[in-house]
Amino acid sequence: MQPKIGKLVLIGAGNVGSAVLNSLMQLNVVNEIVVIDYNKDKALGEVLDASHTTAFVYSSNVVVRVGDYSDCADAQIIIMTAGPSIKPGDKRDRMVLLDKNVTVMCETMEKITSYTREAIIINVSNPLDILTYVAQTKFDYPKEKLFGTGTLLDTARFNRMIADICHVDAKNVTGFVLGEHGTTSFVPWNTVNIVGVPFEEFKTQFSLTENINKEKILNDIKEAGMDILQLKGYTSSGIALSVCRLVDAIIHNEHCVLPVSILLNGQYGIHDVSLSLPCVITSGGIERVLELPLDENGKKDLQICVDKLKNIIKDLNL
Amino acid sequence: MQPKIGKLVLIGAGNVGSAVLNSLMQLNVVNEIVVIDYNKDKALGEVLDASHTTAFVYSSNVVVRVGDYSDCADAQIIIMTAGPSIKPGDKRDRMVLLDKNVTVMCETMEKITSYTREAIIINVSNPLDILTYVAQTKFDYPKEKLFGTGTLLDTARFNRMIADICHVDAKNVTGFVLGEHGTTSFVPWNTVNIVGVPFEEFKTQFSLTENINKEKILNDIKEAGMDILQLKGYTSSGIALSVCRLVDAIIHNEHCVLPVSILLNGQYGIHDVSLSLPCVITSGGIERVLELPLDENGKKDLQICVDKLKNIIKDLNL
Amino acid sequence: MQPKIGKLVLIGAGNVGSAVLNSLMQLNVVNEIVVIDYNKDKALGEVLDASHTTAFVYSSNVVVRVGDYSDCADAQIIIMTAGPSIKPGDKRDRMVLLDKNVTVMCETMEKITSYTREAIIINVSNPLDILTYVAQTKFDYPKEKLFGTGTLLDTARFNRMIADICHVDAKNVTGFVLGEHGTTSFVPWNTVNIVGVPFEEFKTQFSLTENINKEKILNDIKEAGMDILQLKGYTSSGIALSVCRLVDAIIHNEHCVLPVSILLNGQYGIHDVSLSLPCVITSGGIERVLELPLDENGKKDLQICVDKLKNIIKDLNL
Amino acid sequence: MQPKIGKLVLIGAGNVGSAVLNSLMQLNVVNEIVVIDYNKDKALGEVLDASHTTAFVYSSNVVVRVGDYSDCADAQIIIMTAGPSIKPGDKRDRMVLLDKNVTVMCETMEKITSYTREAIIINVSNPLDILTYVAQTKFDYPKEKLFGTGTLLDTARFNRMIADICHVDAKNVTGFVLGEHGTTSFVPWNTVNIVGVPFEEFKTQFSLTENINKEKILNDIKEAGMDILQLKGYTSSGIALSVCRLVDAIIHNEHCVLPVSILLNGQYGIHDVSLSLPCVITSGGIERVLELPLDENGKKDLQICVDKLKNIIKDLNL
Repeated sequence: MQPKIGKLVLIGAGNVGSAVLNSLMQLNVVNEIVVIDYNKDKALGEVLDASHTTAFVYSSNVVVRVGDYSDCADAQIIIMTAGPSIKPGDKRDRMVLLDKNVTVMCETMEKITSYTREAIIINVSNPLDILTYVAQTKFDYPKEKLFGTGTLLDTARFNRMIADICHVDAKNVTGFVLGEHGTTSFVPWNTVNIVGVPFEEFKTQFSLTENINKEKILNDIKEAGMDILQLKGYTSSGIALSVCRLVDAIIHNEHCVLPVSILLNGQYGIHDVSLSLPCVITSGGIERVLELPLDENGKKDLQICVDKLKNIIKDLNL
Repeated sequence: MQPKIGKLVLIGAGNVGSAVLNSLMQLNVVNEIVVIDYNKDKALGEVLDASHTTAFVYSSNVVVRVGDYSDCADAQIIIMTAGPSIKPGDKRDRMVLLDKNVTVMCETMEKITSYTREAIIINVSNPLDILTYVAQTKFDYPKEKLFGTGTLLDTARFNRMIADICHVDAKNVTGFVLGEHGTTSFVPWNTVNIVGVPFEEFKTQFSLTENINKEKILNDIKEAGMDILQLKGYTSSGIALSVCRLVDAIIHNEHCVLPVSILLNGQYGIHDVSLSLPCVITSGGIERVLELPLDENGKKDLQICVDKLKNIIKDLNL
Repeated sequence: MQPKIGKLVLIGAGNVGSAVLNSLMQLNVVNEIVVIDYNKDKALGEVLDASHTTAFVYSSNVVVRVGDYSDCADAQIIIMTAGPSIKPGDKRDRMVLLDKNVTVMCETMEKITSYTREAIIINVSNPLDILTYVAQTKFDYPKEKLFGTGTLLDTARFNRMIADICHVDAKNVTGFVLGEHGTTSFVPWNTVNIVGVPFEEFKTQFSLTENINKEKILNDIKEAGMDILQLKGYTSSGIALSVCRLVDAIIHNEHCVLPVSILLNGQYGIHDVSLSLPCVITSGGIERVLELPLDENGKKDLQICVDKLKNIIKDLNL
Repeated sequence: MQPKIGKLVLIGAGNVGSAVLNSLMQLNVVNEIVVIDYNKDKALGEVLDASHTTAFVYSSNVVVRVGDYSDCADAQIIIMTAGPSIKPGDKRDRMVLLDKNVTVMCETMEKITSYTREAIIINVSNPLDILTYVAQTKFDYPKEKLFGTGTLLDTARFNRMIADICHVDAKNVTGFVLGEHGTTSFVPWNTVNIVGVPFEEFKTQFSLTENINKEKILNDIKEAGMDILQLKGYTSSGIALSVCRLVDAIIHNEHCVLPVSILLNGQYGIHDVSLSLPCVITSGGIERVLELPLDENGKKDLQICVDKLKNIIKDLNL
């Protein structure tokens, strides 16, 4: 079945799902949003609350409604946010969600693939890279059409923090957080720059009183999600706009480079694990995976990340 | 102190306040958002979660931070969302919040007015019309610069429902819900039209199988908020985008007509009560209050609404 | 061939065509724009000038290039602006372009229909209604997928003028200019209102010093295009944004009501002529034609318009 | 006089000025645009044509009107596009406009400064760097509030061309064209990168069949404007959107880094000449000038540029 362009299916209407819904409404790029949640009341409440203000003059007339998996049949994009999220007080590693959410992911992919292998699927559920791996390897879904939000939000946090220190617009910061969306993510510092000024010269160029502490920054990024969780009880807005960023890139066939979690097939000599590398995103999904030039530290960091994820995957006995 | 254009102070970071924050971030029209909440952790969590994704390519570089009432001194716009909201299970009348929130409103206005009488204040807290009345009459604030969201969201709901029935864009529906943001709101049906087609001809013009039931529609609108509350546990998105609609109108000096809760000073011969009538909104606030031509039903409905609100005001012994 | 969603073919890179191109670039809703002009240098110059700034941070990565009619094969939308425009000093009736442009339209439709009958075609060339009629009746193109900009710009002018007099946002004015995009266009005054306030009450409601002169307003609208032509040498911006308004409505499947020139098939008992009536626009084209309730004056005005256009059509000996 | 936020004065309604006007209308960030041109008919024609479609549903209610220099008194931003542009057939160096446009610039600055020294002035007239220098040095205008579009459009062209070769979104290309907006502009190649991938690795990373020819690219950029001029008779869209990019940055206090022509006061040891370097743009104008690390080639290129511009300045006998 030919995908209906501008039709998006959102799976999950919890804190993340509902935030995604509301952000998508303001994005004004999709024409139809179908929300699926096992709690149909919650889904309907979110849909009603989101729909009324499409009557306002600068809002586009998006159709938003509760649906079911059969709506995937002609969806252009499917957003997967189902499954429990990490809670305040939990151990600060998204891996605590592992067992429960692997099951949720498998059930969800079963249902989706009974209807379509055409839609672009964006996975948002945690542990992000493991769930993305499971989805990518067990359901024969076209590899370029299924990826996870990965370190996209971590990267936004990194750019924002650097920008705040240097007093420039974060959009002028070039730099990625790569690897696991979790405790072993890393920054390839040798590639970080602000409009071509390399990281080492930030202090001079932006009149900083001291050098930026790389370890502190990386640690702050890793803790940011957990801190927000502790402070407000859950995370929502940041991840919602990360999803919107990807939806925009897909709908407009942008060819932009964003870090997302993909199944590696030889990048840096690595196979059979999912983690985030910078990818060119188009309306067809992932068009190209970039291999940033890593220095020795970067290579070591990547290996730590790969080792952690491969161990978890091995223990899953998929 | 000269207001700093594009600086907005948001009071309250609860369900409504945080939804307002996130919607404002995507609106891309204000430059600085300061969040005030007695729960500083909640405020900080919301601010952090909202700020990171300004790093993305289509997001503007809005400054968002936690602040205090001294930030009102040079604010252009102040959004008041403080005070408890109605809860699932409560009686279906926002008046249950009356006593608590009159106190919150008075305390808040005390603090605001110790810093400014220049900012446009938009009240969102319930019971909307009573709190707006209290704020407008007890603090000598410039009348045109203080108003409540009133029936703006009810109006969006009305337009959306009519549009769904007639299969047209809701932006083509002309029609208001007026009066109380509550159980006595009413629709001046004689002014309702779709691109000039009067309400009576909707059935023919839009090939409806039956006439639209006015009472049912009005009742559905009145219950919509309470239904959403029941379904999702609170209301947020609709009211957040209603606030954004007003912020846009103020920042861009739109001269658009929107129904908001204002202190009546002679409209329809009525004084000394606050309720929603269609107003021309500019960067200076309310420029003009329109008096739609009401038929006998409309006049009766308005009177019921005025009587209810005046009785409540009288009992307050302000 | 399945249309490629977001692909638009623009025929003509003259004053109107190039203005359409530039406005579309800023609209950020289409993904690919192909420009066709017999003057390939002009087309290439416009394309180059329009393309460079897609590099800027808030511009989407639209592909824009010179092409030929084979690009129509998978176009979602085709904009027809070819043929000479009226010149300063010409008689103030777009009919002076008749003979030349009927030929251009026929040649263009021949080429388009050799590649597609799937795309939505928007005709912008003048005399608008006659050319639209020719295109609609001689090439067996699906009726709902081919229409002309008609009185859409005249309507914008009308709303803008009324809004300026009443000091409200023009988006709050409900009212149409209908009929011919030319000397016999008319306003169905009985349907004109501002948020439900009927035209007769504008003077009171908006504190006007005198009643609005209907004849003067209508005359000003009819002359507006010719006046601009005289003042700046051609018209471009207004018609360009009118086209964008339609493109937005199609891409986002808006179901909005806009006046466009369509082939009448029984509306008001009239057949076999093209002129503007309010239509519901979707991604499929024209979903519904509205018949506003006309009073005696409106009916008379419509008849004058029909008579003029039918006479011209008769003389064409199609 | 306190600037009226969102008020913009546009000087010149020729090809560039009118393109700026139309692009600003779609930008939806300013509230009032006042157009000044010695040809009042042309100005009025452009204003009328641009204003009507503000009636459409997604257009903001911008006030656009013809005015005079007294409107500068409370302008927030002034755009200077007056003076003749280079014509097809002219020598391919914007310096052919020198004598005429120095006079126009001086007259214009006289008039502006008789009303304000508060507005941000953006010069667009050519020869860009010389006119910007004259304006900056002879009228005691606050240095940070007056700059020229400089190599901003050249930089967009560079990013676009590199992006086309590497098949990525141009917004992912980091790289500037600096120096003169003219024949001696240069690229500091050592700072060019795509998301941290250095220029030298583009061939491998993006699977190019051959290395990118630096000289050809730089030459293509320098000729791009002249080529467009030859092809379409003038340049307009690219420069118009460059102006919009700056207006957006100012209105939203972006702190973004963009290359604009400023008066050097010691950068790279250079004084008393105007040319483009990357600057941090805020609502106050230029907040900081960045000194990209130049390699030997870059330093040599900069010196050639400085020498050319200083010689021209010397000959002016200001």
